[in-house]
Amino acid sequence: MGQQTGRTDAGGRMAGSQSFVPGRPVYIRASACVAGTKEGEGPFRELIDMTGKDDLFGCKTWEEAESTLQKEAVTLALGKAGMQAEQMRYLFAGDLLGQSTASSFGVASFGIPHMGVYGACSTCGETLGLGTMAVSGGMAEHVICVTSSHFASAEKEFRYPLSYGNQRPPSATWTVTGSAAFVLTSEVNQKNRAKITGVTSGKIVDYGIKDSLNMGACMAPAACELIAANLKDFGRKPEDYDRIVTGDLGLVGQRALLDLLKEKNIDIESRHMDCGIEIYDCGTQDVGSGGSGCGCSAVTLSAYILKMLEEGVWKRVLFVPTGALLSKTSFNEGMTVPGIAHGVVIERAA
Amino acid sequence: MGQQTGRTDAGGRMAGSQSFVPGRPVYIRASACVAGTKEGEGPFRELIDMTGKDDLFGCKTWEEAESTLQKEAVTLALGKAGMQAEQMRYLFAGDLLGQSTASSFGVASFGIPHMGVYGACSTCGETLGLGTMAVSGGMAEHVICVTSSHFASAEKEFRYPLSYGNQRPPSATWTVTGSAAFVLTSEVNQKNRAKITGVTSGKIVDYGIKDSLNMGACMAPAACELIAANLKDFGRKPEDYDRIVTGDLGLVGQRALLDLLKEKNIDIESRHMDCGIEIYDCGTQDVGSGGSGCGCSAVTLSAYILKMLEEGVWKRVLFVPTGALLSKTSFNEGMTVPGIAHGVVIERAA
Repeated sequence: MGQQTGRTDAGGRMAGSQSFVPGRPVYIRASACVAGTKEGEGPFRELIDMTGKDDLFGCKTWEEAESTLQKEAVTLALGKAGMQAEQMRYLFAGDLLGQSTASSFGVASFGIPHMGVYGACSTCGETLGLGTMAVSGGMAEHVICVTSSHFASAEKEFRYPLSYGNQRPPSATWTVTGSAAFVLTSEVNQKNRAKITGVTSGKIVDYGIKDSLNMGACMAPAACELIAANLKDFGRKPEDYDRIVTGDLGLVGQRALLDLLKEKNIDIESRHMDCGIEIYDCGTQDVGSGGSGCGCSAVTLSAYILKMLEEGVWKRVLFVPTGALLSKTSFNEGMTVPGIAHGVVIERAA
Repeated sequence: MGQQTGRTDAGGRMAGSQSFVPGRPVYIRASACVAGTKEGEGPFRELIDMTGKDDLFGCKTWEEAESTLQKEAVTLALGKAGMQAEQMRYLFAGDLLGQSTASSFGVASFGIPHMGVYGACSTCGETLGLGTMAVSGGMAEHVICVTSSHFASAEKEFRYPLSYGNQRPPSATWTVTGSAAFVLTSEVNQKNRAKITGVTSGKIVDYGIKDSLNMGACMAPAACELIAANLKDFGRKPEDYDRIVTGDLGLVGQRALLDLLKEKNIDIESRHMDCGIEIYDCGTQDVGSGGSGCGCSAVTLSAYILKMLEEGVWKRVLFVPTGALLSKTSFNEGMTVPGIAHGVVIERAA
């Protein structure tokens, strides 16, 4: 047998019914995010690592532009980590496009063993959960997780090409043009941005909602179930988290989530934050109910949440990207829009 | 903190550059497969657990029919394992449809934490690899992996609706209508069908081929790289495997694979088998170069390969599902068709 590294401290411990605790520490060593012009004009304008001059990023198609976002995010994250692609044992990647082509074409050139993931807009949480499994389990020392979305490629994929000039109800969210990549490692290093101390994996939750222009309402039940499961599995109260952060419920979905949780006697109103609400100035940027897309929670985590943990403003956060499981075909065939959410407990590294 | 189970023997050991060895045994406890009429008339007719009267399986759309395949495969596999859905810690699931909707709608009702995976037709290998990671790492005692494809939903997704009457070149493969599910466990039990003793995860390999009707040629380079990496990582020769089984290269892709491996001085001709060639009688069933789709390798593993291991005809097999990473959009935009392959070493349980 070839070269082997045995780690006796490796492994994970199951917690409750749908969570696990890493058996050895898993750190977010570095991260980077790249975004579009609209995101670059929003509240995170100073915190995003790179924004494009326009949303084509020098490419000929929206899909290529989205692939470029992933490539740039991975390149920047590796650079910040001071690591090479060859050191990454796995790349966990996903996006919203059919057959995940933004990832296939975005990250192939790095030559990292590729784990394609699909969790709709919850993909950032799913990749971080699986990456934590690999590092904690001793199957990897370092992995990288990346996800993306692009407003124009998503409109084309799920609704209409931009040139059609389709109108949108106020409940609709605006797909974030952006990508973020995260290097996970078991190595103790003072540069580590944060520590992953728990993972709660979500079930598909279907309340029978069919309105694909109100995805916040479709995803709120899944977010509610996930948050309740996390608190139960870890024996925690909402106050044990400085923030409970959902991915892209938007203003409409946030209200639904808070109400659903109250029915379970869980009140998170004082510490809830939604990336879709934070990433834009919803009052002036004409984004309807807020931001959405895989890139929404990923960019917010890299640009803002990890910074707050690094600065010690927050100590422990429950990060819960949320996804709506629909396709153009399932919508046209009258199917419902089930939701899913994946949770990651992220704490201050030091 | 809530209920916890610590496993000191949990964890995995890295092998070579892209493989790992489970730190504690991971068994395939049970499996089941469901397939369409054409598959039911092929060489595995006696080995498939259930075939439909027609390929709609009582549904109104091809997509719903594919979801039904997954639901039936999971139900049967759980039944054979003598286990309940609640005992499964994770469900790793994927398919070929945009946004993996066959999985979203097929398995939601089981209420198992859901890990959506996309590896095109290599998905069966990717789900088994991730499932092995979870069980071996101690994050789960039991998990279930499922994947599917359907001829009619795939033609609609990637090419033309059936009613268009599109013609196909001889290099084209025929998407298998089928689904298979596998229950993985760490429990020693005399009913275990086989044991997973290694996982090699594939990189995306792009030789610049653009012909989506010759997917065997698109995927052969990825299969070649994966097999070479597996042999190197585990310090093995082809003779150490009774069979090296690719997913769906078909007759055209098989030739390409054998030639590419010979350039690396690796000769697997005497022990290579391709699920796409085995699942149909390629001479009489009018399937072009052979079968393809996520269901192709999954059904062949459940119906035939595991049976050969159980009966002791084979002792150790390298199972390598292969995927072509394209979408209708990427094809129409003139992109290449990169390939990927995921390898799993499967041995006799006893």
